[in-house]
Order: sequence, then C-alpha cells, then structure tokens
Amino acid sequence: MTTVFSKIIAGDIPSHKVYEDDLVLAFLDVNPLSEGHTLVIPKEPAATLDKLSEESAAAVGRVLPRIARAVMAATGCTEYNILQNNGFGAHQAVFHVHFHIIPKVGDSGLGVGWKTSEIDHPKAAILAEKISTNME
Amino acid sequence: MTTVFSKIIAGDIPSHKVYEDDLVLAFLDVNPLSEGHTLVIPKEPAATLDKLSEESAAAVGRVLPRIARAVMAATGCTEYNILQNNGFGAHQAVFHVHFHIIPKVGDSGLGVGWKTSEIDHPKAAILAEKISTNME
Repeated sequence: MTTVFSKIIAGDIPSHKVYEDDLVLAFLDVNPLSEGHTLVIPKEPAATLDKLSEESAAAVGRVLPRIARAVMAATGCTEYNILQNNGFGAHQAVFHVHFHIIPKVGDSGLGVGWKTSEIDHPKAAILAEKISTNME
Repeated sequence: MTTVFSKIIAGDIPSHKVYEDDLVLAFLDVNPLSEGHTLVIPKEPAATLDKLSEESAAAVGRVLPRIARAVMAATGCTEYNILQNNGFGAHQAVFHVHFHIIPKVGDSGLGVGWKTSEIDHPKAAILAEKISTNME
C-alpha cells in the first residue's frame, strides 16, 4: 500500500529527517504533540507491527535508544513516551509501521489514559499458556 | 537498581510468562488495561530506553511482532498499542525498560490523548539538524 510514509522514504514528499540507514528512517512528525516529536519507521512497507519482518523490527529497536538520546540532547527533554499504534481503533492514522518518540514536557506530549483492572490469576495462567503456545 | 521486574527475571517473584530468550522476557501485566496486556522487557536492567544497549534494544524489537501475533491469536484482538514510557512524568512506574502490548477492544485498552500543534517548518528544519548532529 502506498502511504505518505512510503512517499517520504522515496523522497517524493519532503521531511525533516533526523536519521537514516538501510532499513530505518526517522523524521519529525508534522503534527507534533511536543517539540522534538519524532517518527521512526522501517523502510519495509508493513501496515502493522505484526506484519513486519524480524529483521526490520530489530533494526528499528536497535536504533531507538540512540535517536531518543539525540532528541533529548537537542530538546533538553528528560522524559518521553514511545508509542506505536496498530489499527484504526487503536489510533493508527497512517498504515505504515511507525514508532513515535514523544517528549513529555509539562502538559505537552502524550496523554495517557490508564484504566486498569485486577488480574484474575487462574484465568491469566490459562491465557499466558495460550499466548505462549501461539508463539511460532 | 532492583525493581519488581529484576525480581521477576530472577524468578523471585512469580509471573504469567509468555516468552523468554537469552535477552528478553515477556509476561502478562498484573494490572491489565485489557485482556492479554503483555509486558516485553530486556533482561538488562536499564531504567529507561535511552540507557539500554543496542543489543538488548534490537532483541526486544525483533521479538515484538511475534509476541504481538501470539497475543492476537490467543485473545482474538485485531488492534493494539505498543507503549514504552520513560520518566515519572511520562507515566513510567517501574524503572526497568518495558514495552506494553495493549490490545484495544472496544473501550478497553490504552486511552490516547492527542493534542497536536502545527509544525513550524523553519524551526523544525533547525531542530531536525540539531537532532541529527546529536546522533552518536
């Protein structure tokens, strides 16, 4: 699928690039939640993380700490969130995998809604076993 | 620093484990936002992502798609968020790097607050250059 991000990778749409290697591109989000809001994307055009190759997923993971440090150094932020959304209902807008690095400075940054429940341990034991057996 | 997660890694605190390899452990969150809410952590005891080694960061990144697929298969969810918080103000509670995999099903899952601003392109060009030059 062609998305705005594949066009950015191809150079058909300009971006404020902060990092690039063979597998990964990083650039500033054009609708930032805070100063330094950066997107880190694989060049591989997977729509969601579960469809991404291990090689690209490892390449993105590997470079996240370095890019986070560079964002911190450039903006002076000391706190930040990494967010990666999968699916329209989970707030994904562009269907090409992207990891947000979002500096948290005062009220700017990511708003986190956190409505937890107590775990049901007997049910959780069954679910963990089910997830575990579904690992290929 | 000793945290509840280093105790889980050591086996001193029980967990509902779903995956383990030499560098990574994954288990169910005991205060889930939704069914199947899973934590994926490096065994390396880094407090925040910017302090994590590239090797551990790559190992976590590599396995995220597989664990996400297993969570989807076991729970039936089709949408989910990956969240990794750094700093108390950014909603981090345990100071050992952890990636949340949070299924989004109806109202359950992660609440996302998204208050963006327009990018200032001349300023952004300068900021991108500054982040870029801060990449080691």
